[in-house]
Amino acid sequence: MNWNECPVLVTGGASFISSHLVDNLVNQGATVTVVDDLSNGKKENLSKSWDSIKFVQQDLEYVSKNEMKKLFDGNEIVFHFAADHGGRGYIDTHPADVCSNFAIDHHVFDACNNSSVEKIIFSSSACVYPTELQNEIGSDYKLKEEDSDCDKLNGFLSADVEYGWAKLMSEVQMKSFNKQYGLKGCPVRFVTAYGPREDVTHAIIALIYKAVEKMDPYQIWGNGQQERDFTYVEDIVTGSILAAEKISDMTPINLGTGVRYKMIDVVKMICEVLGWEPKEFDFDTSKPTGALSRSLDNSRAKQLLGWEPKFSLKQGLEKTVEWFVENHKIEGKVNEASLLDHTN
Amino acid sequence: MNWNECPVLVTGGASFISSHLVDNLVNQGATVTVVDDLSNGKKENLSKSWDSIKFVQQDLEYVSKNEMKKLFDGNEIVFHFAADHGGRGYIDTHPADVCSNFAIDHHVFDACNNSSVEKIIFSSSACVYPTELQNEIGSDYKLKEEDSDCDKLNGFLSADVEYGWAKLMSEVQMKSFNKQYGLKGCPVRFVTAYGPREDVTHAIIALIYKAVEKMDPYQIWGNGQQERDFTYVEDIVTGSILAAEKISDMTPINLGTGVRYKMIDVVKMICEVLGWEPKEFDFDTSKPTGALSRSLDNSRAKQLLGWEPKFSLKQGLEKTVEWFVENHKIEGKVNEASLLDHTN
Ligand SMILES: NC(=O)c1ccc[n+]([C@@H]2O[C@H](COP(=O)([O-])OP(=O)(O)OC[C@H]3O[C@@H](n4cnc5c(N)ncnc54)[C@H](O)[C@@H]3O)[C@@H](O)[C@H]2O)c1
Ligand SMILES: NC(=O)c1ccc[n+]([C@@H]2O[C@H](COP(=O)([O-])OP(=O)(O)OC[C@H]3O[C@@H](n4cnc5c(N)ncnc54)[C@H](O)[C@@H]3O)[C@@H](O)[C@H]2O)c1
Repeated sequence: MNWNECPVLVTGGASFISSHLVDNLVNQGATVTVVDDLSNGKKENLSKSWDSIKFVQQDLEYVSKNEMKKLFDGNEIVFHFAADHGGRGYIDTHPADVCSNFAIDHHVFDACNNSSVEKIIFSSSACVYPTELQNEIGSDYKLKEEDSDCDKLNGFLSADVEYGWAKLMSEVQMKSFNKQYGLKGCPVRFVTAYGPREDVTHAIIALIYKAVEKMDPYQIWGNGQQERDFTYVEDIVTGSILAAEKISDMTPINLGTGVRYKMIDVVKMICEVLGWEPKEFDFDTSKPTGALSRSLDNSRAKQLLGWEPKFSLKQGLEKTVEWFVENHKIEGKVNEASLLDHTN
Repeated sequence: MNWNECPVLVTGGASFISSHLVDNLVNQGATVTVVDDLSNGKKENLSKSWDSIKFVQQDLEYVSKNEMKKLFDGNEIVFHFAADHGGRGYIDTHPADVCSNFAIDHHVFDACNNSSVEKIIFSSSACVYPTELQNEIGSDYKLKEEDSDCDKLNGFLSADVEYGWAKLMSEVQMKSFNKQYGLKGCPVRFVTAYGPREDVTHAIIALIYKAVEKMDPYQIWGNGQQERDFTYVEDIVTGSILAAEKISDMTPINLGTGVRYKMIDVVKMICEVLGWEPKEFDFDTSKPTGALSRSLDNSRAKQLLGWEPKFSLKQGLEKTVEWFVENHKIEGKVNEASLLDHTN
């Protein structure tokens, strides 16, 4: 597929992941429109591509059908990445707010269907998987797409808090638009993304922030043994673009590394990169940590997209720390409220 | 509770069930506002109460936040009954369209939360239950509220097609607004409602329609052995009002009779009431029939609301047939498309 001059709409395009996607598409010559209400996204995330894109500030939760049609018409591909979303501290304490996604996502699928759009790629999440499969530290089970299968609506489904249920139901919506109207595209399921431009409600950025501020005792949420499949943002972007090129029938695709690290080990890697370490760790088990052990099987992505993650955690951390240090003004203390809510 | 002068908003108020609710509330002296986009509802359903109510024609799927606040402010109780909905033929063939409910319901819960509203009663459905529990003709299992428990988001849930999943997720939304913001109210789960003003996409009205048109061979969807818990509209209305008076903590409540009848036996009762019968039955097993055997346990409604259904199927059918005959112009043939889609 040739992205040159391809008209593409990126919802939530001013965010962490989406702005990297925009940069990549612009580099490939695509004609990109970004729609974002800037509730969490920032225009400065788009500074690299700003002169080449069209930016529309618009809320997608409350919007007229006409406005949506105007916005979507003329585009061929939509990457729907807008969401009320944040790290574990955010989604656990804002269960009603994340329900906005039920409305946002519906409006977007409906608009794709009512306009010139040929394909929609939707940023789904590892939160669509049963937490029951993620309860055992040291497990080597990798979550497979079939573990949450929206083709089996008569069966039983499970997901991780309201945020995960909303993502799962949006996949159900996509299938139903495909069934009733032939809408094309697919959901891509991301897991614990990290990289430049992410906010401090997310684990890795929070951990870097604490290390840069030399927090001591250095606080870790939970006992530090939780395991995650950290995926570098560039890998997520290339996987999402490949999905747009290759998938039409709403097949969901995991984009994870299949490797997992314990939080405490990530902290140690970050400290190594920064050449600093705390005298003491403080494990705060009152804080939300999410599932105990999570990693995605990525064989479908390998097979259908020819995708493989290119960045090791070490490489990704080096880039992320470098960005953070360049952009963060040291205050000598950690603002704890900002770890729970991106409006702080 | 005294409904006299109580400001009440009924969404979808021009519909079958909701218009009966409006009539009841108006009789009790409530100050009722109806909001409906008239996509399926009809103003004439409100003719009894028209002079006492305020009617606002407004779509709730695409709407501004301001508009919602204006509409909801000043009301104490909201009965949220608007939905993209129809009988089995409709919901099975419009899987994407019923996904509108994800957006409609979110907007309504959010508006209740952002306005003066004290309580919201939501028309949920027996479609929130696993179909797995409803697969056996002759079963005497009655679906219990715990069979779909939105407090157990980490567990596994199941529901009946997209329509049922959307209702279930709206219950999840209600709980989350309660958790995060203290919103009060509850979902009431209806099962196969029937009565005057229902449209022909629904089983009982379709069966009466065919009998009144003397369809012969008389067509029955499926093999006629499917079993349902038919609940007369007046009983649903009194149960919903009691729920508004008594429940605050989002506990879902079944409103069904606990009795089940086979479709073929309902047809025979209808024919008896009409004093006509076909020479031949034609069982069309290509048509959607939904779950094989469905009935609701109503002990929670008895215990918490002091509610019991007052109308036997025979009594309800007599009233419904009488209404249908008075309002239907005989055409000598059955318009089959109208059984699948209420826009026909
Ligand atoms: N970061 C992760 O680890 C991760 C993991 C799985 C899935 N995802 C998903 O990937 C997508 C992008 O993630 P991110 O980390 O860049 O998230 P983010 O929260 O930074 O991005 C969401 C963007 O959507 C915008 N937005 C929010 N509500 C909006 C509304 N009502 N109308 C218009 N725009 C609105 C925000 O301003 C923001 O720019 C999201 O859909 C997220 O759920 C992210
Ligand atoms: N009839 C049943 O057997 C049954 C069973 C279980 C649950 N329910 C639920 O009870 C409620 C009422 O059922 P009914 O049979 O009277 O249904 P209905 O389909 O006749 O009523 C829905 C009403 O909502 C209105 N509406 C639809 N979309 C709207 C929108 N976007 N904005 C504003 N209004 C909109 C329609 O015009 C209609 O008046 C529905 O929520 C339904 O899902 C009904």
